[in-house]
Amino acid sequence: MVDNSVYQGNPLNIDPRRITWKRCVDMNDRQLRFVTDGLGGKVNGTPREDGFDITVASEVMAIFCLATDLADLKARLARIVVAYTYAGEPVTAGQLGAAGAMAALLKDAFDPNLVQTLENNPAIIHGGPFANIAHGCNSLMATRLSLSLADYVVTEAGFGADLGAEKFLDIKCRAAHLSPNAVVLVATVRALKHHGGCPKAELGVPNTEYLKKGSANLLRHIDNLKNGYGLPVCVAINAFPTDSAEEHELLRTLCREAGVPCALSEVFAKGGEGGKELAEAVLSVMQEHTAVQFAYPDDAPLTEKIEAVCKKVYRADGITYAAAAKKALDEITRMGYGGLPVCIAKTQYSFSDDAALLGAPEGFVMNVRDVRLSAGAGFVVAIMGSIMTMPGLPKKPAAESIDVDAEGRITGLF
Amino acid sequence: MVDNSVYQGNPLNIDPRRITWKRCVDMNDRQLRFVTDGLGGKVNGTPREDGFDITVASEVMAIFCLATDLADLKARLARIVVAYTYAGEPVTAGQLGAAGAMAALLKDAFDPNLVQTLENNPAIIHGGPFANIAHGCNSLMATRLSLSLADYVVTEAGFGADLGAEKFLDIKCRAAHLSPNAVVLVATVRALKHHGGCPKAELGVPNTEYLKKGSANLLRHIDNLKNGYGLPVCVAINAFPTDSAEEHELLRTLCREAGVPCALSEVFAKGGEGGKELAEAVLSVMQEHTAVQFAYPDDAPLTEKIEAVCKKVYRADGITYAAAAKKALDEITRMGYGGLPVCIAKTQYSFSDDAALLGAPEGFVMNVRDVRLSAGAGFVVAIMGSIMTMPGLPKKPAAESIDVDAEGRITGLF
Amino acid sequence: MVDNSVYQGNPLNIDPRRITWKRCVDMNDRQLRFVTDGLGGKVNGTPREDGFDITVASEVMAIFCLATDLADLKARLARIVVAYTYAGEPVTAGQLGAAGAMAALLKDAFDPNLVQTLENNPAIIHGGPFANIAHGCNSLMATRLSLSLADYVVTEAGFGADLGAEKFLDIKCRAAHLSPNAVVLVATVRALKHHGGCPKAELGVPNTEYLKKGSANLLRHIDNLKNGYGLPVCVAINAFPTDSAEEHELLRTLCREAGVPCALSEVFAKGGEGGKELAEAVLSVMQEHTAVQFAYPDDAPLTEKIEAVCKKVYRADGITYAAAAKKALDEITRMGYGGLPVCIAKTQYSFSDDAALLGAPEGFVMNVRDVRLSAGAGFVVAIMGSIMTMPGLPKKPAAESIDVDAEGRITGLF
Amino acid sequence: MVDNSVYQGNPLNIDPRRITWKRCVDMNDRQLRFVTDGLGGKVNGTPREDGFDITVASEVMAIFCLATDLADLKARLARIVVAYTYAGEPVTAGQLGAAGAMAALLKDAFDPNLVQTLENNPAIIHGGPFANIAHGCNSLMATRLSLSLADYVVTEAGFGADLGAEKFLDIKCRAAHLSPNAVVLVATVRALKHHGGCPKAELGVPNTEYLKKGSANLLRHIDNLKNGYGLPVCVAINAFPTDSAEEHELLRTLCREAGVPCALSEVFAKGGEGGKELAEAVLSVMQEHTAVQFAYPDDAPLTEKIEAVCKKVYRADGITYAAAAKKALDEITRMGYGGLPVCIAKTQYSFSDDAALLGAPEGFVMNVRDVRLSAGAGFVVAIMGSIMTMPGLPKKPAAESIDVDAEGRITGLF
Repeated sequence: MVDNSVYQGNPLNIDPRRITWKRCVDMNDRQLRFVTDGLGGKVNGTPREDGFDITVASEVMAIFCLATDLADLKARLARIVVAYTYAGEPVTAGQLGAAGAMAALLKDAFDPNLVQTLENNPAIIHGGPFANIAHGCNSLMATRLSLSLADYVVTEAGFGADLGAEKFLDIKCRAAHLSPNAVVLVATVRALKHHGGCPKAELGVPNTEYLKKGSANLLRHIDNLKNGYGLPVCVAINAFPTDSAEEHELLRTLCREAGVPCALSEVFAKGGEGGKELAEAVLSVMQEHTAVQFAYPDDAPLTEKIEAVCKKVYRADGITYAAAAKKALDEITRMGYGGLPVCIAKTQYSFSDDAALLGAPEGFVMNVRDVRLSAGAGFVVAIMGSIMTMPGLPKKPAAESIDVDAEGRITGLF
Repeated sequence: MVDNSVYQGNPLNIDPRRITWKRCVDMNDRQLRFVTDGLGGKVNGTPREDGFDITVASEVMAIFCLATDLADLKARLARIVVAYTYAGEPVTAGQLGAAGAMAALLKDAFDPNLVQTLENNPAIIHGGPFANIAHGCNSLMATRLSLSLADYVVTEAGFGADLGAEKFLDIKCRAAHLSPNAVVLVATVRALKHHGGCPKAELGVPNTEYLKKGSANLLRHIDNLKNGYGLPVCVAINAFPTDSAEEHELLRTLCREAGVPCALSEVFAKGGEGGKELAEAVLSVMQEHTAVQFAYPDDAPLTEKIEAVCKKVYRADGITYAAAAKKALDEITRMGYGGLPVCIAKTQYSFSDDAALLGAPEGFVMNVRDVRLSAGAGFVVAIMGSIMTMPGLPKKPAAESIDVDAEGRITGLF
Repeated sequence: MVDNSVYQGNPLNIDPRRITWKRCVDMNDRQLRFVTDGLGGKVNGTPREDGFDITVASEVMAIFCLATDLADLKARLARIVVAYTYAGEPVTAGQLGAAGAMAALLKDAFDPNLVQTLENNPAIIHGGPFANIAHGCNSLMATRLSLSLADYVVTEAGFGADLGAEKFLDIKCRAAHLSPNAVVLVATVRALKHHGGCPKAELGVPNTEYLKKGSANLLRHIDNLKNGYGLPVCVAINAFPTDSAEEHELLRTLCREAGVPCALSEVFAKGGEGGKELAEAVLSVMQEHTAVQFAYPDDAPLTEKIEAVCKKVYRADGITYAAAAKKALDEITRMGYGGLPVCIAKTQYSFSDDAALLGAPEGFVMNVRDVRLSAGAGFVVAIMGSIMTMPGLPKKPAAESIDVDAEGRITGLF
Repeated sequence: MVDNSVYQGNPLNIDPRRITWKRCVDMNDRQLRFVTDGLGGKVNGTPREDGFDITVASEVMAIFCLATDLADLKARLARIVVAYTYAGEPVTAGQLGAAGAMAALLKDAFDPNLVQTLENNPAIIHGGPFANIAHGCNSLMATRLSLSLADYVVTEAGFGADLGAEKFLDIKCRAAHLSPNAVVLVATVRALKHHGGCPKAELGVPNTEYLKKGSANLLRHIDNLKNGYGLPVCVAINAFPTDSAEEHELLRTLCREAGVPCALSEVFAKGGEGGKELAEAVLSVMQEHTAVQFAYPDDAPLTEKIEAVCKKVYRADGITYAAAAKKALDEITRMGYGGLPVCIAKTQYSFSDDAALLGAPEGFVMNVRDVRLSAGAGFVVAIMGSIMTMPGLPKKPAAESIDVDAEGRITGLF
């Protein structure tokens, strides 16, 4: 509808060089990341640079997960900024007359859907926004429905707690006026040894030295959640067969010293039975009323919000901004979106924006390369590093192994 | 998978400038007709010119409609020529290892699906290939299933009988070893008056002069089907409220003179009751055994096949070939596809390739602009004129009228 | 200046998809034939499809050769149509304010330049427009200067006489109100044998049969010039060492029967001395006053002008027009350029538009693929076949052989 | 020749996505900054992303200015890395066979050319490389010729002394084994007041406070040249009519305190006469033998060289590298170019890479965005900020004012 509006006389005066909305397909199609379309002369559109994302990277997915009801969904869709005019003013999906049809398409998908675990426990799987250019957790509709149906609701917030938990708290909980009763911080012995400098080949060999060194990473996450966000924390050690008892014991000791309980989770190997210790530990820290302390207030300027997350959560020394990023922040503020929370897109491999800085790095400066507005979702994305929003196929695509015989039996799916 | 193979070391030596397979989406997206993709440097694919079709224009749709069973479907998919190597040799979907996955994706769709008319008669709607760059009628699976279930099976072959019937007979019946027991040739008074030169505004005003003149078009179709293809023919006049009795009478007279029965069909206004006369007329011409006489034999060279259709069916005086078309025909023949039937892509508004030549034009020369191989579908497409395989949105897209309210009530779909 | 005008607010309302003016460089750069430029975002121009020509293919070269003086040069440059507005109206170089600067750049080049032959005869070499998309002969300034300085002025008009002579007469002589006193039609035994079907390897072997058959080509050219254009004609046989006396005699006989003198030209081997017979023959046919009969009058519609050249000069049976060509002719006429002469861009290998039709072909239909306006040069180009206006380098570019040593001696230029 | 090699079978196995050599034209053509060329199918090149620079931004210009003789010129041209293979190995102009022809084209231009000043003093103007992506001063051939002809040779090194002088010393003097006898540091009252925070509108109003504050910039340059590079320094105040005597006096005082002479230069207003004071001052500091102390030794790793310039000359606190820059530095070192000097491309408006940091900024971190190899010129370019290598036309291009009348009189050039 954006390109068609440009083609049909361009009544909204859209600058084709500033259409920010990308097409989406649910294919791993590397070839479509950057394209020039509208070629072929006057009757075939308007030449411009464009690109495709996969659907989970679309702002629609983030909107879908943050909308409070159908009316809010439609209002958020209408607020999506899809382009800018030649004069630099934003053009929204609402102005294009697209919001109604978009909401109609999403209507049925918007109802949370119930699935079950292997032990027949109910689970609601609903919505999946990226945890870099979006906030990375499931839909608010699902959370609300769950809270009305169950005694305890667990929300998974992906990537490291500096990404997943930060966004769950500063974006989703802020938007939904929710405050969790406790945080379960999941750790593995392997990952912490990796943060301690252990070579990949030795991750399966018990080694408390690497573990101790790498635990600085865990301790910083604990500190962030407990003292920064002010929430009760319980650590879950996700057990692996290669872990040693000594390693588990070391983690228990370190957590004790940090003032938080720590439980071994063996649910992968033993099912629900393996989660009993963890469940008890979680119950022990839950408080009926908690009030999350956000990393920044709504009314701070965008640069202060970025600084708050980088300094308080990531522990950066300073922040530099590329010229384009600075300009975009000014423009976004001028357009009236300065009150939105920020969503920081950075690597999940380090507290910093450099994937090679492991453990609990200090003394680093972070660079904001670009800034984008997600006006419908309701946040401003600060991009640190290069973010991929359209994957590619591997050397041997899964499709090569898939087949169907003359009787219709499909093979090779897994 | 084509682009990924090029990207991952190009083991099949594909020339990116000669990838003939286009991406498909089921959106009216004018902007995607001609694109350059794979931009953005070394890690983002390989720069090349590309384009998108809608799915009904894909060779997969034609294959789907001509395949005799699941094994044949997979074999045809494997034969699709998706690209050429730097040395000019064809590269197939089979060589890419894509045929199994493609067939697996189509497995469920390949079963014909039963719907019903407003009077609860069964109807099988299955497959919809374009009638210009493909053969334009439903699936062979559907036809076979119908023949096994019903006493009488009617197949609709769209566009004029020079396109729809020609392809149904020379492509589908040839491939399936079928011969229809009768042909119902549908005509309207309005269309024939249009062929007689009647201005659009006057099409609803009774006028036997225009009708008589335009009936040359109908009479040529009758001649083609009866004498050319050697099949029993019955004409159905699709009644319109603006038709006059005198006009219907004129058509009946002309048909009688041409030696074929003619019946008024009022099914639009009266339902099944309105089709009785036509049903009787059809029964009267049906012969238990008929043998269609194809426009050309399998073993004629491709140029003779094109000539046969153009001269016998369209009644052209001659055929000219653009240099690219000639070269493509030679290459296709050299590659061993000379035995395939031809599928001519031309306007449906005229017997000729010039939409303005109405009635039963004579003395015209036709130009073959380009030739494409559909090795999986099993025909060679000769392109006469410009063929659009990706539509665009109108000035006011339907989406602008669609809405959903807070209670989930969708409006504006129709 | 075109792109800059679009970039700087687009005051002339230029549709970037309809900029018809291409960039020019004097490099054989195949890679630049078709490009998309203006990429890289808002500050780097406007994305559009574009291409480069070599300078001899530019309309500026044709204008340069047809302009009568500096004022006319500037006026013609101002009339160049470089683009169309969104409303379909032409935009000229004059409207862009470019004509003055363009004329200033050409000012010195516009003075004809004198060179000499190996025998110290004066020759003016000035201007070199393509003989397909332009009129293919030197500047009017040069011709006028020569006429004021010498008793006899010879103008070379390249390619076959159906291209070079036709354009020299119907375009240049018409524009300049000139009429030549005689036409020298140059023929070689080798070329005529080729037109008679002689294989390439045997062109050097005397053979009067092939020559006789191929002379149909020569005779048609004689007929065109003598009876069509009404001019005195003299045939020059450009002698080759492989020619036999019998072959030369045959040509003399055929010319005698056709009523025109024929002389052997041995200037390649013998210099001026070798041209004496030809010089005498030319003098014998020269008439002080001749009046060329153009192939068509100025006021005929463009389609009639195209038809006149195709039927009278090429001897085509008929002409077909691609839809785009027809539309362009209508638009050009509507814009007021219907009174211009036509310039037909076709192969020089045949009277027809099919390079394979040798001799004096008959019974062929020609296809006008596209039509372009050269409003500054003052003609309308009808394109028959594919025309290349930017050459490419060969497998071993000449540059690979060029070198310079430490003392500055350059080698490998020839 | 690069694209032709790819087209003609690609014997050097060039990856079209990694052709680093751009086309050059001497036009201000914004539209050509970023293009996709080689479009139009198999016979028209190979689709790839490309761009155009103006010629002064070409590595050829830098080579031309650093070559010691014709043989060295050719050898340097041969070393230009124009592309990389699919395996990541560099491809040079020499491998393409282009070096000889390139040197032959440059042969005559390579001789320094003599012009004169308004007072008839000889001046050699020869070569003009950009001072960001190249080293910014005239040809070594010119410098050597001048040294053999005159008693005193002055070389202009453009932009601030952190760019022009740094590159003149660390790149040109290093390559040519030259050491200047003195450095003339040019300053203006206006520029120093700007560095002191003076608003643009007040730059012409005497104000010693702004001047004093801004002089920190001058003092740092003095410190760099005198103590860093170890050279005798003399400051030239380039007089403006709006300067006050008090302001000049302040600068004299500050220079005296810094231990360097300072002279007023009034050559703009008074010609040679106005330069006497400066000449005397320069003579007073000249030493027969000086030995420049480079910012870094040849054998330091590239990152240390970058750090040396950034910390010693610009006075940065630290340096961050974008991932692409780090990777490029590793690759360049791996390929054996680690011994080359570095050429830093940054803004001329600040010691830092942020044009807004005036005076003598401290406490800033610089970001290396990208790194490029100029193997022929003999340096490695570290890019800090965005560098423009192809200008665009202004809103009213000069060409609009240029005209020529019927008598050939050109107007509007100035």
